[in-house]
This record gives sequence, structure tokens and C-alpha cells, in this order.
Amino acid sequence: MNPQVGIIMGSQSDLPVMAEAAEILEELGVSFEVTIVSAHRTPDRMVDYARSARERGLKVIIAGAGGAAHLPGMVASMTSLPVVGVPVKSSNSIDGWDSILSILQMPGGIPVATVALNGAKNAGILAASMVGAYDEQVGKNLDVYKSSLKEKVEKTAEDLEKKGWKEILKK
Amino acid sequence: MNPQVGIIMGSQSDLPVMAEAAEILEELGVSFEVTIVSAHRTPDRMVDYARSARERGLKVIIAGAGGAAHLPGMVASMTSLPVVGVPVKSSNSIDGWDSILSILQMPGGIPVATVALNGAKNAGILAASMVGAYDEQVGKNLDVYKSSLKEKVEKTAEDLEKKGWKEILKK
Amino acid sequence: MNPQVGIIMGSQSDLPVMAEAAEILEELGVSFEVTIVSAHRTPDRMVDYARSARERGLKVIIAGAGGAAHLPGMVASMTSLPVVGVPVKSSNSIDGWDSILSILQMPGGIPVATVALNGAKNAGILAASMVGAYDEQVGKNLDVYKSSLKEKVEKTAEDLEKKGWKEILKK
Amino acid sequence: MNPQVGIIMGSQSDLPVMAEAAEILEELGVSFEVTIVSAHRTPDRMVDYARSARERGLKVIIAGAGGAAHLPGMVASMTSLPVVGVPVKSSNSIDGWDSILSILQMPGGIPVATVALNGAKNAGILAASMVGAYDEQVGKNLDVYKSSLKEKVEKTAEDLEKKGWKEILKK
Amino acid sequence: MNPQVGIIMGSQSDLPVMAEAAEILEELGVSFEVTIVSAHRTPDRMVDYARSARERGLKVIIAGAGGAAHLPGMVASMTSLPVVGVPVKSSNSIDGWDSILSILQMPGGIPVATVALNGAKNAGILAASMVGAYDEQVGKNLDVYKSSLKEKVEKTAEDLEKKGWKEILKK
Amino acid sequence: MNPQVGIIMGSQSDLPVMAEAAEILEELGVSFEVTIVSAHRTPDRMVDYARSARERGLKVIIAGAGGAAHLPGMVASMTSLPVVGVPVKSSNSIDGWDSILSILQMPGGIPVATVALNGAKNAGILAASMVGAYDEQVGKNLDVYKSSLKEKVEKTAEDLEKKGWKEILKK
Amino acid sequence: MNPQVGIIMGSQSDLPVMAEAAEILEELGVSFEVTIVSAHRTPDRMVDYARSARERGLKVIIAGAGGAAHLPGMVASMTSLPVVGVPVKSSNSIDGWDSILSILQMPGGIPVATVALNGAKNAGILAASMVGAYDEQVGKNLDVYKSSLKEKVEKTAEDLEKKGWKEILKK
Amino acid sequence: MNPQVGIIMGSQSDLPVMAEAAEILEELGVSFEVTIVSAHRTPDRMVDYARSARERGLKVIIAGAGGAAHLPGMVASMTSLPVVGVPVKSSNSIDGWDSILSILQMPGGIPVATVALNGAKNAGILAASMVGAYDEQVGKNLDVYKSSLKEKVEKTAEDLEKKGWKEILKK
Repeated sequence: MNPQVGIIMGSQSDLPVMAEAAEILEELGVSFEVTIVSAHRTPDRMVDYARSARERGLKVIIAGAGGAAHLPGMVASMTSLPVVGVPVKSSNSIDGWDSILSILQMPGGIPVATVALNGAKNAGILAASMVGAYDEQVGKNLDVYKSSLKEKVEKTAEDLEKKGWKEILKK
Repeated sequence: MNPQVGIIMGSQSDLPVMAEAAEILEELGVSFEVTIVSAHRTPDRMVDYARSARERGLKVIIAGAGGAAHLPGMVASMTSLPVVGVPVKSSNSIDGWDSILSILQMPGGIPVATVALNGAKNAGILAASMVGAYDEQVGKNLDVYKSSLKEKVEKTAEDLEKKGWKEILKK
Repeated sequence: MNPQVGIIMGSQSDLPVMAEAAEILEELGVSFEVTIVSAHRTPDRMVDYARSARERGLKVIIAGAGGAAHLPGMVASMTSLPVVGVPVKSSNSIDGWDSILSILQMPGGIPVATVALNGAKNAGILAASMVGAYDEQVGKNLDVYKSSLKEKVEKTAEDLEKKGWKEILKK
Repeated sequence: MNPQVGIIMGSQSDLPVMAEAAEILEELGVSFEVTIVSAHRTPDRMVDYARSARERGLKVIIAGAGGAAHLPGMVASMTSLPVVGVPVKSSNSIDGWDSILSILQMPGGIPVATVALNGAKNAGILAASMVGAYDEQVGKNLDVYKSSLKEKVEKTAEDLEKKGWKEILKK
Repeated sequence: MNPQVGIIMGSQSDLPVMAEAAEILEELGVSFEVTIVSAHRTPDRMVDYARSARERGLKVIIAGAGGAAHLPGMVASMTSLPVVGVPVKSSNSIDGWDSILSILQMPGGIPVATVALNGAKNAGILAASMVGAYDEQVGKNLDVYKSSLKEKVEKTAEDLEKKGWKEILKK
Repeated sequence: MNPQVGIIMGSQSDLPVMAEAAEILEELGVSFEVTIVSAHRTPDRMVDYARSARERGLKVIIAGAGGAAHLPGMVASMTSLPVVGVPVKSSNSIDGWDSILSILQMPGGIPVATVALNGAKNAGILAASMVGAYDEQVGKNLDVYKSSLKEKVEKTAEDLEKKGWKEILKK
Repeated sequence: MNPQVGIIMGSQSDLPVMAEAAEILEELGVSFEVTIVSAHRTPDRMVDYARSARERGLKVIIAGAGGAAHLPGMVASMTSLPVVGVPVKSSNSIDGWDSILSILQMPGGIPVATVALNGAKNAGILAASMVGAYDEQVGKNLDVYKSSLKEKVEKTAEDLEKKGWKEILKK
Repeated sequence: MNPQVGIIMGSQSDLPVMAEAAEILEELGVSFEVTIVSAHRTPDRMVDYARSARERGLKVIIAGAGGAAHLPGMVASMTSLPVVGVPVKSSNSIDGWDSILSILQMPGGIPVATVALNGAKNAGILAASMVGAYDEQVGKNLDVYKSSLKEKVEKTAEDLEKKGWKEILKK
């Protein structure tokens, strides 16, 4: 199956964070591709990636970057596809504020769908929900996933109530 | 045509900001509906809206709120559709930081696609890009829109270069 | 004795912080219950908990959550009981600012009594003071507790003055 | 009826903000008193107020102050009653951050129930909810108040849906 | 004379701020050109501008932008010339923090010489100092400019001391 | 009488803020001088001022500046007298944070006694308290001043209690 | 010799930070006393300490506290002596911002001479400079101390220049 | 070859950060010198360094400092050469905000070319680009350096695509 989601990141050092997007997309049955594209170090590669994305069949692009993070916004400026931006708290970041603000505060006309700091998992779920709005199976997979979240909470709640908080705390 | 996008806001006072989403969706040829749903004042109405959204045919929900802005995140917790959150700089907000953080920093499992502070126009374009990933006509409308942005900049640049910056500044 | 205070948290990972509320309530002679309720993962459970709280005899609810922390505010929207919110500095939080602002900055009409970041102990004392305003015994227990705080400071001060700061510093 | 709630503020200039607490308490049928007590200018008056509050029959104290706002915390250190703190965005405040942090971040043992910046109305509702946990009539008044909030939102929503957002926006 | 400095900005609305760079360069005898280049709306134009800058004889580029300000960093990624970035406090900016951080916090390898918020005048002086390090006349002009700053302060100081602060304050 | 306190500021535009230091020193019977000294525009003048201050009989220096405010810290590095720093919220300041941090966060060895943003009045009182620690008359003047603050609060409190908050609010 | 400086702190856990004030005062030949006084846990002790300070011969009070740090400001409200406030980055602090703002942003009339976060050493030097303005010997000790700082820098500079930066870096 | 770039820092403890500027200048073929100059501890040395820089043949000065970082701005006030400021996140810094703001927010007339927090490597590249604007060889070295950055990214991208993200992640 052709990839529906493209996951790109500015540097290989972002992979431990960004891999969570890949993992959840796999779990939700959405096809994807993963590669490295740097806005500042490989601008031509970025232009090529962004401009060819739609015709290559992608439906969403997930882009992660840290510090003065220009990758998500620059990609968004060169495609009509939705771009999900993941602010990465990289080593050169000021508590993540720089990553967040340089992805979130895009000017009128060029939106980036920003998720939480290091929120690559949520970026994957968000991309799946965009696909799932049109693909019944993915929509159902998302419902199953939501149910599993609920069941896990209910189970830990039941466990806590049965054993008592002191017992759980000891662990 | 059934609405493809649902635009909701916590209070009528958010309408001047949120109307920009409606205006750009209209321009981009995407059908939508607009109403008021408050997470804190009408929690049942919020539950109904979120849970029925998919079966009513919506593809995306845009939710705007200010201060401790719980509407986008709570709606996202009750639907498999993508939810775009607009942090509104309302009168009770601390420079918008509260609106931004309480929409952006969602826990793992429940993403909200956050846009810039008061960025309702971008929320509309983002929603259109989600629709446009599957709807060729909307995709083309987005390309036309992007071209118009480019042309406007090129025209003002040409104007500036021809007349000189001092002349333009006088206006 | 029926619980007078309900302690809830969004996730079991909040327990090490939130247990301090339970411990101090125990010390102050206020009955309580502890469980897990997630605004985003178990919205129905949250609605049930909030709506039944008063008739089950609770006098105060303490709710702790981190990141985009919607639990305290959403519970407050569905009960006439006072809700004490504990901003938890969870792993996905930006230095706690997100937790604080999404609990503190509630819109007009729906207050949450917010305490310091990770301030579950103070949440317990605050809940006890609400009970103690009507229950003489709990009021006295609070006075005893305050006296013990005072005595501890006076004892360390006496110790410091007697032994000298250099001696104390060595330890 | 003896006052159940004491409303104090550091300066008369805080009255336009703090009066909202008085107005909502009046509406909710809770008796109260209003006066000025400055932590820094009248420390003895503050000690007297705090230490006599409980025996004078108060059940809650609402204290508002701006800048390095010490009044709520100092009062809380001298009474076993719950103290609600209102961070006031006074003219000498840095966007309100100083007011918020110096009220919210109380050390272990001495909580202040902090509400939103300039959130005196919510301070009043919170105080009422503490009284209402023990006083059925006040509890009912709070339920009526919540219903009225809900009805107002539903009415504006209905209005918006009937007339259309463009019509409402024109006003 | 061929322009030595290129002044670009993301939008014509940045001109009132950015014109200060032009004015001071004129005063300091440094030739320059002014135009509009948007990273997000005219990415190709930006690539052309950056890549041809050196061969067109420019020695420095001054780039101003607001919000998620990608123009200075993207231009810096495509030229070996020094790029001076001016964070503009545009209407869609959060007190300027977004503009500052998305220009300042560039990743290793791609620096931007960032000046103060709205500091276009200083950007002009900085560009002149780069030219002046190699061009004696411009270096001297800078020394004259510094002397004039000093003389102005000395004159106002003398005036204040002679007339007295009360007199000056009245004006 | 020789001046005991030197008040300096980086620019004449700081005078409306800094004059409050002069006014309160006058009221408290402490002699002073006022002039303009810019760290960046008149570095030699700053060196002369700082190095001669003690032998000219000054006991304290009050220095006000905004933005990247280097005057107080640089003066402190060149005198053994106490230096009081006033962070001025000048037009080129980011909500005053830059002024505060560049005055407050001095390295070990070179302290500046920092007061609140625009807190020139408090700088004057602080300088007077330093003089008053050794000069009985100034010490008494400070006590009288404190009493007057207390009386003003007590009078407004009495007024409020007598007339009622609604009456006062109307004004 | 009677103590000239009083060093107080809110809790014994502040001693490792606050001891630096004692150490430098010892080095500078200024007599001092050290004890623990908590604004919130021992308010009466605080009132006694502040009100008796002047008649006991103190010339300056150094007060350190963390979180919502009320000790320095409350002490300042009850004495005409200068009070130096040390914001302590305690475990319950939000990166120190709460400590700084609740000490720095005192209202008009009640200044606190605030030093850097954890800047107890500078608090000691500042207190010594206040004493040294009237006591020639302490003034000279401060000059000697400043010279020693200068010599240390000059020695490390000489060392670096002689051995080369690569050699120094290896250590 | 005479040094073209002067690298100075406030303290030897800044060397591990600042050495990155030296290393990259070496790589780019730009001559430089390194020493320690403290604005607050050796003000005369700073004046001498700044005033003699141009006649000694320097083309750029790189100055690094932390906390209330006055070195870059003070040096800039005493030379017509461009000054690059490196905000160092020293141990006494508040997450680096103080370092950044006291370097970046210079008043009109005295610019500092500020780079990212701890961005000494970028300071070196920026200085090289200023030299390289006039020195063809250094300009070429910069182009080679940029190409090497690009090639590294392309190689890791190729590697990732060939081996797959799961394989790379394992390492």
C-alpha cells in the first residue's frame, strides 16, 4: 500500500521522539513513510519533498523539529496537504518554548497543525483521524483505540479502589 | 450540501475571531456549520455535539475557546474526527498563554490540532486541507488560494521596488 | 464514616503526588476516598463522579492532573461542591505552566480552587479547612497542626542559634 | 445575619475588581462583609482580622491583592478557615504573573485557594460553594445559577443558528 | 554604487519598522536595496534572492519578520553572507516572544545575527559595522555616529543639571 | 548639604519614572543629586561617575535603565557603595522582563539592589533606609512615613465600612 | 561586637544557600547573626524580629525564602532598616520565578533590595556595602575584595593566553 | 597571520561553551585570538580590549557571558567593529532567559549580533561569514562547510530509508 502519511524530521537525533508517530500509525493501520529532511541543511530536498507529496499519494505530512523549528511551516508553505508539526525539545531548545512558538505561530494563510511538545504519538493519532474521517476502517480502529484507553483507566481505577491507595503507592 | 466542517466556540464573544474560519471555508468551497457549545456551561450539549459529529457527516471540527480552554480537548476526547483548536485571546486570558497551553498540551492519546493565537483563519484553511486531501476540487481551491497569496506579495514587492520605500512609507 | 472528601486524579502516575492529600487528610481526621477519573479517557465516568458527588455526601472534591489539565475544571462545571485543583508537573508538562494555567484560568461562573504546583498536601489541608469551618473537631485539628508547624520552626531556630550555623551546615 | 464570608483587599484601588465577589455573593444569598486590610501597610490590622475571623463566625475569607501579593498567604497563616486568593492585575503588576505566583505558590502547610487573574466573581462563587456544601439553600442557589449559565448559552446558540453567524456578527 | 546591504521583509506591513534600517544605512553612507520576500508566500522568490545575493555584490542581508519568523533563518541557510534578523512585533505575535525565538534559536551550522525586538535601526548599524570593518570611510562614519550619541547624552545631562530635574520634568 | 544619594538614569526619557525617587527622598529629608549617565553612549562618563562617587560623599547610588539595562551593574562594578537598580519599562522593553533580568541577575561579587519594575519611589525609600540606618533623623522620618501609609489605609477602610462598598464603587 | 547584619531564612533547608551570605560577611569583617524565621509558620516570631531589629543595633536585614516568598516583604513592612531579599530556588519553586517575583514586586512604600536567584553571597556583599558606606574599614575591605576578583580574572586570562585555550580546555 | 576575530568571555568557566567558536573558526580558516575579559571584574581591561580592537586588526569580536551578561553590549559601546554576543547558560542563569535578554535587547545605537543560547559554534560561523563577505577563500570555505552539512543529512536520510527506522532506532 502506498504511504498515506509522510513522517519527516530535521535530524536523526529527533528519531527517538518521532518514532512514536510511526508506532501508533502502524497500530492504527495507516501506511506511512519515514525520512530525514532538514529545512536549513537540505532546503532543496525539502522543496522536492513538499512539492511532490500530494502527487505521490500522501494525505498528511508529519514534520518534527526543535529550536527555531522551520521545517513544518516551510513544508506547509509548499503543499496543499495538511501538515502536523511536532515541537521537539532538542538539546539546543529553551525548555521547548522556541520549538513550540516557531511551529505554532504561523502567519495567516499557512497553518501548521501543532501538537504538544514531543507529542509525536499524538501527531500520529491526529494524522490517523484525518485519514479516518474518509476511511471507515481507520475510523473504527481509532474507536477501538479510544476504548482501550478507557478500559485501561477503568482497570487501574478498579485496582486502586480494591487494593487501596496505600497498597498501590508501595509499588 | 451537508456541512463538512463544524465550527464551535465557547461563547458568542468568540465570534468575531472565529468568523474568520467561516469566511475562508466559504471562499475555499467547503461546507460548514457554526454554533456555540460551552464545555463548562453546557457539558451535555458538548457531549451530544462531539458524539454525533461523525454520523452527521462532519469530517473536521474546529473549536475555539479562551483562558482555561477545555472545549477543543474535551470534544477531541469524544470523537474520532480530527479537532482543530483555536486559542482565543479573550479578555480573561493572560496574554493568550493560558489559551494556548490548555489546548496544545493534550495528553498522549487525545490530540488537538492547535493553530496560532486567534488563528481562526488558519484553522479554516487547515480544515480545508484535510478535506482537500480527499476532495480534488478543494485541493485545487487551496492551490489557487496559495497562488493568490504569492501574487499579492509579488505585487507589493514590485510596487515597493518601483516606487521606492520612502514613497510607500509615506502612505 | 462516609467520605467527606473525594480525591481523584487523571492517571495512576499522579498517585505519588496526590497521595500527600490523602496522608494529610488522614492526619487531620477527615474521611476521604481515592480513585482515578480521566477527563479525556473516561469522560462518562467523570460525568457520573461529578454529578453524584454531592448526593453521595462529599463536601469537597480534590482533582489533580497535568499538562492540558481539564479534569478539575470539567468536574467543577458539573457539581455545586467546591473543587480543589492540583496542577501536577507530569512528564509531558512544560515546567508545570500548562498544568497551572489550564486549572487556574477558569472562565467566570466555574471556579477551581487552585493550589501550588504538585501541592497535593496543601489541597488536603485546604479541603480540611473547608470541612473544619463547619466541624469544630477538624477546626481544632487544624489549629494543632499549625502549632506543630510553628514548634518545628522554633525548634530548628533554637538549634541553629545554639549550635551555630557552621555546625548545622556540616550535617 | 452574621457575615459568612469576609472580603478583604490590600487597597481601595482593588475595589472595582473585588466588588464582583460581593455582587455574586449577594445574588447567591450568602452574607458577607467588605473591608480594606493591607499586609504591608497595616500588618497589625491584618493579624487582628485573621485571628478573629473564625470566632466572629466567618466561614471563608476572600483576599485580593496585586504585585508581590502577600495578603492572602499571610492571612491563611493565621487562621484555620479556608482563604480564597484573588490575584489582581494592578498597575504595578507584570502582566499579573507576580500576583498569581505570590498567591498560588504557598509552601506546604499554608494553602491559599487561588482563582484566575482578576477572578473575584469566581472567588465569590467558590466561597458560596464552600458554604453551600453545608447549607442546602445556598447549594440550591448555586444549582439555579449554573442552570442560568447553561440557559444563556443555549439561547445564544439557538439565536446564532436561527439568524446565522453573519447576521450576529454584524451587531 | 551597487547595494552593499539587502533589506528584506516578509510583508509590507513590516515596512514602518524595517525602514529604520534603511534610514540609518543612508546616514552612515552604506548603499542598500529594499524589497519584500516572504518565506511562506513566495518560497521560490526567497530561494532566488538568497542564492544570488553574494554574486550580486551584497555583503550583508537584513531580514525582518514576525510571529513564526522563518525568513531570516531560511535565507541564512542558502547563502554564505551574514544575515541579520529583526524580530518584528507584528499583530499576530505573542508579545514578540515568537518572533525572537524563531529567529534567534537557529540550529548549529546556520547562524542568524539577531537584534532586539523591532530593532531595525540596530540591524542597520550592525550591517554598517560589518561593512565598516573593511571600509575605512564607513568605519569613520560609525565613529562619528557614536560621538553624536555621546554628545546628545552629555548635552541633556548638562541641561538637566543646569535647569534641575523639576524644570525638565515639567516639559 | 552634600548629596547623600546619587540618582542617575540612562536617558532623559527615564526621568518621569526616576523623578519619583527624587520626590520621596526630598520628602524623607535625604539630600541627593540627579543626572544622566549612559552606560552605552557615555561609558567614560559612567566610569568617572562611579569611581568618584564615594569620595564625593555619596552613600548610595540609584541607577535606572531599561531594555538590556547595563548601567546599574556596571556602576556597581566600579564602586564599593551600594547601588540600587530600577528596571524601567521603556518603549523598547519586552514587558520589562529584559530590564529586570539584566539588572537583577548580577554575577557573584557584584550585587545590585533591585527594586520592582518602574519602582523608583521604592528605590528612593530603600536608599533612605540605608542612610537612616546610621542617621537617626532619617530613620524617624521613615517611621513617620510608614505611619502615614498605615493611617491612609485605615482611613479608607473606615470610609468603606461606613459608607458601604456600593457607595464607594460608584465614585 | 554587636551584630550589624541579621540573616534570616524561612526554613533550615535554605541554609546551604544562605550560608554564603554569612561566609562573605565574615570575610569582609562585618558582624552578623543567623536564625530561622518563617513568615507563614511563625508570624509572631517574625513580627518580634522585625520590630526589635533596629533597637538591637542591626543596620541591615538579609531575608531569604522560596516559592511564594513573603518573609522579606513582610519584614520590610515592619522596620525602617533596609531589607535585602534573596529569592531561593527551593524544591517547590517554578524555576525560581515565584521566589523572584514575590520578593521583587513590592508595592510602593515598602521596598525590598532584591538580589539574584540564590544570590546570598551578593546579599552579603550588598549588606557590607551599606555598612561600608559609613564604616571606612569595611569600605576598604570591599575595595580589597574587588581587587582580588580582578586579580583572579587577570591571572586566569594570563594563564589562558600563555598556555592556549586548547590546553586549558583539556583540564 | 594577525587574528581577524577576537573571542572573549567573562569567565574561564565559559570556555567549554566558547571553545566551539574557536574550533569552527580554525576549521574555516579564519585566524583568531582567545582571552578572558570580565565586564564587572575587570572593567579597565574591557575598555582597553574594546578600544584597541580595531587598530590591532580585528574584524569581529565574539563575546560570551551568562546571567546579567553585560560584556557583549559594553564592548559594542566602545568599538565600531561588529560584536557577536553568545548568551551562556551559566549556573547562575534562569534557564538562560537572563543571558539572552541582557545581550539581545540593546538600546538603539549599540547593536549586538546575538546568537542562540550557548550558540558559540554559530557565533564562529557568523564571524566567518562577515570575514568571508570580503575574503573569497573564507567565503568558499563556508560553502564547503554548508555542503558538508547537507551531505551528512542526505547520508543519514539514505541510511534511514535503506535500513528502516526500526533498525536505526535500535542503535
